[in-house]
Amino acid sequence: MNLEIFYKTLSDIYTLNCVRSLLDWDQQVNLPPAGAAGRAQQLEMLSLLVHQLYTDPKFAALVDELSEKSAVLADDDRVSVREIKRNLDRQRKLPSDFVAEKSRITSLCYTEWTKARPANNFKAVQAYLEQIIELSRRECELVGYKEHPYDALLDDYEPYATLSQVKPLLLDLGEELAKLVPRIEAKTAGASVPNGVYPEELQRELCSRVLADMGFRFDRGRLDKTHHPFECSLGTDDIRITTRFDSGNYLSALATALHEGGHAIYEQNLPARHRGTPLGSPVSLGIHESQSRLWENIIGRSRPFAEYLWQVLAEVMPEESKLVSPEDLWRSLNQVKPTLIRVEADEVTYSLHVVIRMLLEEQLISGALSVSELPGAWDDMYQKYLGIRPAGDKEGVLQDVHWYSGMVGYFPTYALGNLYGALFFRTAQKEIPDLDQLIQSGRFGMVVAWLREKIYQHGMRYHGLELAQRISGEALSVRPFLEYLRGKHGV
Amino acid sequence: MNLEIFYKTLSDIYTLNCVRSLLDWDQQVNLPPAGAAGRAQQLEMLSLLVHQLYTDPKFAALVDELSEKSAVLADDDRVSVREIKRNLDRQRKLPSDFVAEKSRITSLCYTEWTKARPANNFKAVQAYLEQIIELSRRECELVGYKEHPYDALLDDYEPYATLSQVKPLLLDLGEELAKLVPRIEAKTAGASVPNGVYPEELQRELCSRVLADMGFRFDRGRLDKTHHPFECSLGTDDIRITTRFDSGNYLSALATALHEGGHAIYEQNLPARHRGTPLGSPVSLGIHESQSRLWENIIGRSRPFAEYLWQVLAEVMPEESKLVSPEDLWRSLNQVKPTLIRVEADEVTYSLHVVIRMLLEEQLISGALSVSELPGAWDDMYQKYLGIRPAGDKEGVLQDVHWYSGMVGYFPTYALGNLYGALFFRTAQKEIPDLDQLIQSGRFGMVVAWLREKIYQHGMRYHGLELAQRISGEALSVRPFLEYLRGKHGV
Repeated sequence: MNLEIFYKTLSDIYTLNCVRSLLDWDQQVNLPPAGAAGRAQQLEMLSLLVHQLYTDPKFAALVDELSEKSAVLADDDRVSVREIKRNLDRQRKLPSDFVAEKSRITSLCYTEWTKARPANNFKAVQAYLEQIIELSRRECELVGYKEHPYDALLDDYEPYATLSQVKPLLLDLGEELAKLVPRIEAKTAGASVPNGVYPEELQRELCSRVLADMGFRFDRGRLDKTHHPFECSLGTDDIRITTRFDSGNYLSALATALHEGGHAIYEQNLPARHRGTPLGSPVSLGIHESQSRLWENIIGRSRPFAEYLWQVLAEVMPEESKLVSPEDLWRSLNQVKPTLIRVEADEVTYSLHVVIRMLLEEQLISGALSVSELPGAWDDMYQKYLGIRPAGDKEGVLQDVHWYSGMVGYFPTYALGNLYGALFFRTAQKEIPDLDQLIQSGRFGMVVAWLREKIYQHGMRYHGLELAQRISGEALSVRPFLEYLRGKHGV
Repeated sequence: MNLEIFYKTLSDIYTLNCVRSLLDWDQQVNLPPAGAAGRAQQLEMLSLLVHQLYTDPKFAALVDELSEKSAVLADDDRVSVREIKRNLDRQRKLPSDFVAEKSRITSLCYTEWTKARPANNFKAVQAYLEQIIELSRRECELVGYKEHPYDALLDDYEPYATLSQVKPLLLDLGEELAKLVPRIEAKTAGASVPNGVYPEELQRELCSRVLADMGFRFDRGRLDKTHHPFECSLGTDDIRITTRFDSGNYLSALATALHEGGHAIYEQNLPARHRGTPLGSPVSLGIHESQSRLWENIIGRSRPFAEYLWQVLAEVMPEESKLVSPEDLWRSLNQVKPTLIRVEADEVTYSLHVVIRMLLEEQLISGALSVSELPGAWDDMYQKYLGIRPAGDKEGVLQDVHWYSGMVGYFPTYALGNLYGALFFRTAQKEIPDLDQLIQSGRFGMVVAWLREKIYQHGMRYHGLELAQRISGEALSVRPFLEYLRGKHGV
């Protein structure tokens, strides 16, 4: 049994993936404009090297051999082999000419999209998007599925989940939220938001203080500034996040820092002894998103957190703290109002944006909807679920990068993240005594310890829906999330 | 003739080397403390990949084949093949167990040195340094040499140069400078230096303005802050430099920015069509250093530059410009006084530090001096050449990282840089009309254009001493440098 070679290869792949992450992080944070072409070459080369290691026939044969003997493997090894085989099987089903064509079309479509969006011109990118949908449908057939072609796409982002599990949840969520939104909007209307001028230095200090209290380890990570915030893992001990600063509203940078910080704390707490293997890796995008949304929303927009935040504010921006009360902060953090842009949406309407995208994706893949009909269908969906209508494609169907860069099947994980997060937090409330008191005093250690025990330590041992069941004792549903929202807003 | 494969391999090696440069740059600029172990693994993996490409038997055979047929190659190809063969031949002469041992001992010695230096304790690292000198001597025998073993080491940093060429220059330089220093010291004594408090932001602005005027392309590079300043090439269009800021003296950050900027402008102006090949690469460390010292010292400490600098100061720090005259700036920039630490030395005494190191290196390699005798010999040399004596090894033999990280034969290139620089500038003065006037008004474009034509465009077509001869019409000597110093200080 060549487990040693198996793990050595995983370790090499991990090392190269960390390097690729640095190339990517640096591109978004530091790269001089003219450096883009060289960087693209560097990224391509690293991707090729990883691909070569992964699909080396000897390694593939080893994985198959280990998989056949998996009954005699130790538990940990069995999980690793299972997940690597799963990934490898998918890759082996995609012929290299398909991969090359998808890569080529995706790159062309993305470039066209970056021009089409500001020009408000869906037509300019329509033909490329048609090819991407066609390629996605071919991918479904190549990869295979049991029930619905869409399963083959979803599986790439939320392993083991199927449309028959996810769609009822999202439909349910859509209908309930559509009813809730007007009532919550009415209740939260008229809250004031910060409206001074807040130096970046102070905003950064505020974010750093809160992140440190949350448990983000600055000796094993960084906080930087970018236009598009993100979390990036360059290795177990080098987890970097970024935020952006709105000079007129410090709560915006803070919410982003909490969101990316949630992702980062997950990554920083994955078991280091399993680094580079499935047991040292995050479960899925949905579970990852549950962590960011748990911190950003469920904790970060709670009353106890507003109390805590006011105390930090009193130290970092004493003048500001004299102008606002914890209650003011809470109200600022909890305004709800239907808007057109997903990434600017509040905690309640956000999932509606996602439901719309999933329904459209499913129809595109099943063939019920053509790409030419997509903008109209998009606008109708916004009318139906949010009661508003985009004035143009820029704030409609062109707003998100995902489809135009080949990611179809990704969106549901955002809504799953909200559902997972609410389920986890409700369980934590039962299991951690005085949780509100801990949050109010900024002592988040127990929360991280709980998450580590329940989620982080397991790596990919359990898949998302399985993990939810294990942690909470019940199947994932929309109930905890809706109850959380109703409870918060008293509706 | 598989020139295509030859250039494709060079291109891949170049791409991986750029990635390695980013790993290195990021380590010095951004890496969180706990990320060091992971980064070391990443660097090791990249080095291994480059080594594999370079020493792949097929590639080596191709290089040999091309080299044998070099008479029928086009000029450009012949140069590339010549330099790659040269490098490959050196690598092939070093058995892998020798390389592994050198790498291991070097790493241990470096780690020990980082502790021995602050502890002022040469004894703690002596045994490791003995092994490094022994390994260097073995390297000389493995690589081979015509006249002196030291040639095999020097050749790695200043290709084609030999001790018989370099030693007389440095000995000459040492004797002449030792006589000059007391006279220049007396003339420059008592100049005032800036003594306010200068915010980093303003110092950065000052450096950036001057760098932009010099021709440093910020769209193809960056300026950052580190404790140890350096220049790093991540690709033709991504050349990064760093400086450090002394809050009480803006001239310190500026001189460093000019120095690193000189390196960077060389790198930014290497012919892009030859990137990754010897014709797109710098000649040698000595020629590289000539560029940094030309900008830092010969231009950057000249009277016309002081006039220009005062004008920039008047815009960036108007208050400061009211307190100093261009003459004050010039005097501040040109104080000369023997000191113990090389990296803090002034323009005149600097080369003496280097002469001392070369003489000691030569004796260590020839066996005339043992490592145990080194600290005493070091102190005696300082007494002889600079008239001062270190109080301990920390400010003596332990001050530089080079030997302790296995770099023996590197030091002479620093002094060669001064000699090359003075020769180049004297030629430029003859060939560029109104050069002083151009510098005084901050119009450096003609200087860069001249350097591009004379040096940058040729890549490694000519070696250092050959290039000096071609540009100036005379062999490299100490005369231009000494005349420059005598002229400046009127001694």
